[in-house]
This record gives sequence, structure tokens and C-alpha cells, in this order.
Amino acid sequence: MAESMQGMKRTGRCAGFSKDNIGEKATVMGWVNKRRNLGGVIFIDVRDVSGVMQVVFKSENDKALFDKAETLRNEYVIAVSGTVIERDEETINPNLETGYIEIVADKLKILSEAETPPIDMSDASKTNELMRLKYRYLDLRRPVMQENFILRHKAVKATRDFFNENSFLEIETPFLTKSTPEGARDYLVPSRINKGSFYALPQSPQIFKQLLMVSGFDRYMQIVKCFRDEDLRADRQPEFTQIDVEMSFVDEDDILGINEQFIKRLMKESVDVDIKLPIKRMTYEEAMNRFGSDKPEIRFGLELVDLSDFLGTSSFKVFTGAVEKGGSVRAINIKGGYEKFSRREIDSLGEFVKTYGAKGMAWIAVDKEELKSPVIKFLSEREINTILERMGAETGDLICFIADSNKVVYDSLGALRMEVAKKLGLLEGTEEYSFLWVTHFPLMEFDDEAKRWTSTHHPFTSPLDEDLAKLETDPGSVRAKAYDIILNGVELGGGSIRIHRRDIQKKIFNLLGFSDEQAHERFGFLLDAFEYGVPPHGGIAYGLDRLIMLLAGKSSIRDVIAFPKIQNASCPMTDAPSVVDDIQLKELAIKLDLAQLQKQ
Amino acid sequence: MAESMQGMKRTGRCAGFSKDNIGEKATVMGWVNKRRNLGGVIFIDVRDVSGVMQVVFKSENDKALFDKAETLRNEYVIAVSGTVIERDEETINPNLETGYIEIVADKLKILSEAETPPIDMSDASKTNELMRLKYRYLDLRRPVMQENFILRHKAVKATRDFFNENSFLEIETPFLTKSTPEGARDYLVPSRINKGSFYALPQSPQIFKQLLMVSGFDRYMQIVKCFRDEDLRADRQPEFTQIDVEMSFVDEDDILGINEQFIKRLMKESVDVDIKLPIKRMTYEEAMNRFGSDKPEIRFGLELVDLSDFLGTSSFKVFTGAVEKGGSVRAINIKGGYEKFSRREIDSLGEFVKTYGAKGMAWIAVDKEELKSPVIKFLSEREINTILERMGAETGDLICFIADSNKVVYDSLGALRMEVAKKLGLLEGTEEYSFLWVTHFPLMEFDDEAKRWTSTHHPFTSPLDEDLAKLETDPGSVRAKAYDIILNGVELGGGSIRIHRRDIQKKIFNLLGFSDEQAHERFGFLLDAFEYGVPPHGGIAYGLDRLIMLLAGKSSIRDVIAFPKIQNASCPMTDAPSVVDDIQLKELAIKLDLAQLQKQ
Repeated sequence: MAESMQGMKRTGRCAGFSKDNIGEKATVMGWVNKRRNLGGVIFIDVRDVSGVMQVVFKSENDKALFDKAETLRNEYVIAVSGTVIERDEETINPNLETGYIEIVADKLKILSEAETPPIDMSDASKTNELMRLKYRYLDLRRPVMQENFILRHKAVKATRDFFNENSFLEIETPFLTKSTPEGARDYLVPSRINKGSFYALPQSPQIFKQLLMVSGFDRYMQIVKCFRDEDLRADRQPEFTQIDVEMSFVDEDDILGINEQFIKRLMKESVDVDIKLPIKRMTYEEAMNRFGSDKPEIRFGLELVDLSDFLGTSSFKVFTGAVEKGGSVRAINIKGGYEKFSRREIDSLGEFVKTYGAKGMAWIAVDKEELKSPVIKFLSEREINTILERMGAETGDLICFIADSNKVVYDSLGALRMEVAKKLGLLEGTEEYSFLWVTHFPLMEFDDEAKRWTSTHHPFTSPLDEDLAKLETDPGSVRAKAYDIILNGVELGGGSIRIHRRDIQKKIFNLLGFSDEQAHERFGFLLDAFEYGVPPHGGIAYGLDRLIMLLAGKSSIRDVIAFPKIQNASCPMTDAPSVVDDIQLKELAIKLDLAQLQKQ
Repeated sequence: MAESMQGMKRTGRCAGFSKDNIGEKATVMGWVNKRRNLGGVIFIDVRDVSGVMQVVFKSENDKALFDKAETLRNEYVIAVSGTVIERDEETINPNLETGYIEIVADKLKILSEAETPPIDMSDASKTNELMRLKYRYLDLRRPVMQENFILRHKAVKATRDFFNENSFLEIETPFLTKSTPEGARDYLVPSRINKGSFYALPQSPQIFKQLLMVSGFDRYMQIVKCFRDEDLRADRQPEFTQIDVEMSFVDEDDILGINEQFIKRLMKESVDVDIKLPIKRMTYEEAMNRFGSDKPEIRFGLELVDLSDFLGTSSFKVFTGAVEKGGSVRAINIKGGYEKFSRREIDSLGEFVKTYGAKGMAWIAVDKEELKSPVIKFLSEREINTILERMGAETGDLICFIADSNKVVYDSLGALRMEVAKKLGLLEGTEEYSFLWVTHFPLMEFDDEAKRWTSTHHPFTSPLDEDLAKLETDPGSVRAKAYDIILNGVELGGGSIRIHRRDIQKKIFNLLGFSDEQAHERFGFLLDAFEYGVPPHGGIAYGLDRLIMLLAGKSSIRDVIAFPKIQNASCPMTDAPSVVDDIQLKELAIKLDLAQLQKQ
């Protein structure tokens, strides 16, 4: 039977004691991490969020206490009082702050007994993730998990401190709100009081933070949950946390400048890393041309080289066909790749790019004596020499070509260079954190399926002043005052200068296919607001989960979210979502749509 | 046409300048607050979130610039550069930091023009609240509103700093989760991926914070949105913000102790008030007996006096009847009340208590010569003398009686003393902030309608150790390790020590009418967690909106929420909630229940 704590008071966390406390009385409370019985002596490692303290029970000191200690099992919760002493030389653990001391117990209370945990508490790799999430409260006991949340706490603290010191106000925006067009589905919340109507959970506080700028709160920051009802990918959650920032009376440089200061502070205070400022900048166009990606990993080379100018007129139909259709021929040179990859591995790279839409990969290997290639026979000697020259080819190199639409060329070569870098270990020994701004994104993209323009970021993004004139004639070429922040090839966040003129905002809505009426229905209040004096403004939002994941060196955001959902958007611990009483639905004036349910 | 900011950079907020800057160049940006044209000189007050700066345009200096300044209207957004100078003696405004200086403009850009605002920007009392909320972005421009959010930011900052310094971790809990039994309706969110199933938005993170304790994070804090689908009262919102705290290895005193430190810090840093510790404590029983309320306003007397012992046997049926049915006769003595209230006002007090369920109010007035009272004829002289003695009656006093069930007596006399205090101005000159802990709440209350026990706080609240034995025999008399924090008669928050033993938790669920099966279905994961080692733990939650409302001296929480809902849970600005496309409902496999809709 569990005992009450009554009469005992914790004097510190386990790792709060050190050699300085030798001779003092101490009371620690926590979980039994390990028990060793050496005949007349029992050692108990007591674990709490701070670390571990070794406690000793000696039969010769107090037989009753010793016998009680013998009943302890792993994960029991106990309170122990005793005296801090120095450990015997041979039992010192120099790896732990508390490794030089132990507590000789004179009092023990068993606060809670425990069954044997259904998951391995010391090695998560022995338990499948579903079990870990079902018993998340046990999984979170593991120090390696707790470290993630301590890191997250520190990062959030540094974030708030930075923005507070720079006169940003933290202002809460509503959760029960109206659909916004962020490109994903909204989660809906049926209203009981206004039956037949629905709230939407926010995909971001975008509109509200812009309205706060209209209100004159000229620096806003919020760390806030956002919601997207998407089919889950590995690194997506239905609810996720955003660091949301907005400023007035600024241009792009102002926003990038203060955010660089923020990133520097964040990195220092969360992972104690010094980031050099300014952070590198690259336009979208350059990023695509050199790395085939708008979130380029720039810590290694393998850059794309455009060979369309002369290969577009070669006699190799695959190359010329792509260029004629408006696409391109581009290549990367894998230095020493021919020495490192077997023929089979080269073929598997050819298979790899197919998942990115490429129909195939041409290649030329620079062997010691001669070139090896399945395509060389289609090219003239002059073309081959130009390739070798442009690609800086040397003996042992492997040049890989993709000829296709620009999208496929970028996607497949962009992915290929990442894949090759992984295989060759190119990232080993590079700097740990490489930040990059990507700027000048296209304002709009043409959605071939829907046959209309869609916003690359969102419909409130401002075009570049110098591109304004092209809005009507050539929308696809209009660049935006939009920027993403990239860390090691992962997009951490992005933002833009917003449109603050009603006429331009209306024009954009129209280009996006909203009729005046639709625009008014969805954003009437924003358009109205634009009538009453709007400051130039812009901002940024960071994906906090992904940021912490990278800082913690994890590969899944589930490791940095206390109670995450799995792939099918359910929670294995609570079993949410779940069926509800008919009476609840009745109150909301909704019913299940049985025809749709049967389709499932 | 609005101009771009290009080429101008804000050098500071309006109130960021002072006499120290005289002679310097400065650029401010903001809204035109006021424009005065004195012939050849135009004064513009430029307003931003920090305050106001006076800008001067002189025709003789630059005619073109002067003419441009003449086009400015209120709420235009402008950028102005110029030189900071000292004001002429006669134009000094000693009430403003910036009242001694002004900027002589040499450059002006009109960043945005503005229509005449549809609400009065200087005096909210001239605009009805619905209009203020429809044009919330304008309403929030008013300095008196912005101050509320600056205060809120400061209070939140102080809160986070305090808990961080005391080793609490900020950990986020999920929003898309499972129904919890907090006594109110859940907002439901239909799941698209798991059709026919629903998430619930959390009424509080209660279960999750307890699971975090099971996980060993022994000090947790979060400032978090919570949701309750209630019929709205004046001070309720469908979504509200909670300061949520939980600790392990603590008893009630530990939690009250650290929270007192928090309150002291909060009051100092948000409103610069020094609170004396320890905060007063009062049991629930004492609070009810003396003040008729579990959230007593103790800054004035008018305390309840129980007269049941001798009036319960009087010959006045109203008194004896109440006592015989298990109720009571209690009274308050309004000192000098007979001199201050007319007979009509006394009658209106009698009407007032009826709204609290009292059938009537008996009273005795101590006139100079004789007693005046409609009920005195039913009482013996001895009874009358005992009343006068017990109530400390003096000439001019008015004694008011309620005889009824205890609930009605407490409710009506509790409300009456507040009403009388308001009428007599008893709170004038009292201390501004009076905090109080109310402790030892009853664990359960009997719901006469549902004919079952319900939790006074929530089902995880621990009974007092000494009352455990009465759980089965007399549940109504079992007191809880539960506490509320009261400020000036308003409940700011509350909490409890939680049950950490599975056997007691099961017993409570059963008493509350959950079958083992129901308990398992709803809280299986919590009961499971209790098998694997649970620390003693407890916590508290504060209603942040109400706290800020009190600190800001407002009477509505809508004044401290950026985008609040109105009474019918809708938002006049966005028109949320709103109807949605059929296709969205189809994807969620729900339909509107037309029969229920027609009932509306």
C-alpha cells in the first residue's frame, strides 16, 4: 500500500546535490531507476527529472529499513532521507555530477508501487513507437526524452525573451474563427448556439496578426498552435506550433535583420552554438539553378549545371526534346563518383530519380583511359568536351544528367545530390548548423490541375515593387517580397512583406480566382480594414516543432511533442478521436452521413 | 495614392524621444491623431503604440511640404522626418513625456489614406460595443485599449519568468483530444481521416498535466487556451486562457506557498503593487458562514450571523419552518442602514434577494425611540433582545434576515451584503487588491436534479486524509485538498492535490456514477498510468482573462481579449461561426440535422 509523503519534504532534486553537501541531511524523491543488492548493502538509484542519486541502505545500520528497501522494484516512487556522504573510491562515477556522493538512508517511504513497465525504459529502440505512444507517460520518463522538452523549454524561453526585449507584444489570437485560405483543409467545429454554422480552427493567425498591425500594435509575437487537416506525412501533425511574428513600418531587410538577431540568440541559449551574422542570402532563382531546391542544403557542392544552351541542339533526342518543350538539361558532377559507386549503384541512382518524375538518368563516367556512358554515342566530340569542361570533370568523376521539364529536373537532381551526399558522407565534418535565407520567391504558381493561379505563400504577400507592372501581363514572372529561412536544407519558416493597399489586394484576390463577392465574403473585414489606414507591414512564422527537432538532433517531430498523433491523426494513448453520444450530435444539429461513412 | 516607405527608416517610436534628442534628426511613423491648422503652421499629432509626437509644418519653410500636410486627415498613416526641437513655452504639454519637444518636418510620406472611422476613436462610450467589435481593428487603436494588452503582455511575461526561475518547464498539451468530464460541454471536431469520430477541444489540460507528473516532469507550467461550450454569461467566453500549473512531491502548503510568491511577483511587475505575504486563508466553511460565499469579498464587514439556534424555536413560522427543514435563519446588520436607506430602498432590497431564491427578507430597523419591523410582532421580547445583542445593534442600524435552505440563505445574504456595500460605498478607501485563499472545499455535492454526486472541483481531487473513512458513509461531509484563490471577491483560480492512488480514484469514479466500464472508457489511460508509479502531485489553474480584467480595472473580459466573442458566441468582425460548403461536410461524413435546425 502506498504511503503518504506526510512529514517528509523534498530538500532538492537528485542532481541538485554535490560534494558541497557532504555531511548534510537530504531528502530526495523520485523513481527507482536501478536496485543492486550486494548482500548486506542495497544501492538504489533514485531518478527524477534532474538526474540520478545513489542511495545506500545498510543492513547493519537499520535492519527494518534494509528489509523495506529490499521490497523496492524498478519504477516505484519513493521518498528517502539520509546523510550525504562521499562515495568509496571504487564506486565513484566521474560521468555524473552526483557520481562522487551518495545518500546513506535513514528513512524511506514508498509513495507508489509500480507494475513492470510494458515498454523498455532504458532503450526505446527495443519498443515499437506505437507502444511508446500508447504508454507515452512512461516513454516520457526516459531521460533522453525529457532532454528534448528541457531543450524545447529553453528555446521557447529564449524566443520570448528576445522578442520581449525588442518591444514585441505577445497577443493571443482566436482559435474558434473563420476559414482562411492557406491551401490546406480547415478543421471545423460545429456551433451549438448558432446551429448549422461552423467555426474553423486557424491554420495560422495570419489575418489576425495583420489586423493587429492595422490596430497599431507595431511589433507582435505569439507562440501558438495551428491546425491543418492534411493527410499526414512523416513530419506533419494535425496540430503544430508556430512562432508567429509581425512588424509594422518595416521592409524586408528590417525583418530579416531582427530575425537574424533572434536566431543568433536562440542558438546560443538553446544549444550554445555561435552563429555568424549576417546569414547568407540567396534568391529563389539562384537556389533552384544551383541546388534544384528552394530549401537548399548548401554545406556541400554537387551543384547543378545548366547545359541546355548547347545540349538543347545536340542530336540526342532526349536532350533536345526536353529543351524544345521549355525544359532543360542539367547535370551534377559527383567527384570521384565513378570510383566510389559500382555500376549497380549507378543504376540504382537512375531508379532513385524516377520517384521524382524523371524518366531516366543519363551519365558519363570519367574512367582512367576513356569515358564510359550509355549516352555518349549520341553526342558529338565537341559537345562531350564542352560537358567535361563545364562540369570540371576529372578522372574518377561521375556526371549525371536529367533532361525534362524544369520542375522534374530540379526535383530529381535536387534530390539526387542529397542522396549522393548521404551515400558518400559529404556532410561529415561540415558545420553543424547552416542557416540560409531564400528570397524573391515567385508570387504565384499556376496550378495545372485547377487551371488557375495559386499563391506560392499566401494571398496577402506583396509583389516586388519593380514587378508590379507585370501582375496582369505575366503573373508567373512576378516575384514576391517573400523569404524562407532554411536550416541544413530544412525549411524552418517563412514570411513576407504584406500587401497594405486595398487596390493591390483586390487585384491579387481576382487573379487567384476569387470573385469580388467571394473575396468579400471571406475577407470582407480585412478589405474593410484596409480603408482605415494601414501601415506597411510584414512578418514571419517558424515551425517550432521542426526547429526543436533539428536542435535536438532527432529525425521525428513526434520526439519533441509531448502527446503527438500518429500517421492516421489519432492518439494511441487517449484513443482520440472517438465516437460521441448521439445526444451531443443532436445538440449540435449534425448527424453522421451514413452514405459517406460506408464509403470509408 | 499611398506612397511606399522606401528610403525612410523609422528611428524610434513616438514616445521614444525626449529633450535629450533636441537638435537630432528623427523619423517617426504612425497615425494622424489630430491636425491643427493655424494659418501658416500645421501641427500634426502622430500616434503609435508608444504615444504621440507633435510634428510641425511651416509654410515659410517649405510650401510644397506644407500643402501636402494640409491634405492629411485623421487616421492617415504617415512617415515624417525632421529635427527634434524644444517647444515654445506656451505649447508645452507637461503631461506627456514628449510634451516638451516637437519635430519640425522636412519630409512627409503618406503611407496610407483613411476613410472616416465608423466608431469614435477618442471616446468608446459614444459607440455601442457591437460596432466596436465589428471594427475591432479600429477599437484596438485606442490607447486605452492598447494599455490593456501591454498590461497583459507584462503579466504573462512576469508569470513565465517566475515559473521558469523556479524550475517549472513549459510543456504544450494537445488541443485535438478526447472528451473530459469538466462539467461543461465539449466543443467537438469531426475527424476526416477517422470518419464518424470526433476530437474534443480541451476544457483544461487537467489529465495531460497529471500524466506529465506521472512522466516525472515534476514542475509544469503552461499558458494555454481552453474551451467550454456553455451558454455565455457576461464574463465567459467560449475560449479562454488559463495559467496552468502542476507540481509533484508536494502537499497543499507547498503549492500555496509557491503560488503566493508568484502572485507577489505578478502584482509587482504588472501593476507595481506590493502584496504582503502570507495571503490570508479561510476554510470553505468559514467563508460560507461569515460571508455566504465561497469567494468572499472580505474588505468590508456586513458578516452573516447565524441565529437559528434560538429563532428556530420561535413562534414565527417562517423562521422555524426553515430551520426544521434543515435550513437556517441568518442576518446581517447594516450599520446605520436605517438612516441611509428609505423605506422604499429597504423594500427594493427585499426584491433584490428574491433573485437569489429567497421568498422574502425580514428586517428590524433600530429607530431612535423604538424598533420598526414587519416581523417583530411574531417574536418574543427575549428573542428580540437576543437578536439585538448578537447583531451588535445600535441606533440607526438595519438588520436583515433570510430564513430558508442554507443554499438560499448563503446566496441571498451573500449577494445582499455585496449590493449594500456597493450602495453605501463601503469599498471606497479600502486596499486595492485583497487576496484570499479559500480551502477545504467539499469534495462532492449532491446534484438534486441528476440525483447523483458531482465533483465540486473535478474527479481527480484528493479527499483530506482524515476524511477518507467517510467516503462511503457520508460523501457529502468529505472535505477536499482543494483551494481557490480569490481577489476582491472574484475567483481567480483554483486547484487541488490530486488523487495518486488508483484504488481511491476508482472509488471516486464509482461514487460519481461512472461504472467501471465507463471509467475505463473515458479514463482508462489515466487509470493505467496509475499502475506504474505515480508521485503525489497537485496544482492550480488561473483564469488569465479575468485576472487581467481585474488588474486593468475593467468590468468586462472582452476589454482584455483582442478578438472576443459576443454573447451568442459569434464574432461580429469575422462573422464566425459561418455556414460551410457541403463538400466540406461530405469529407467529414457529417450532415446538418434538419429536424434539429428547424427546432432552433
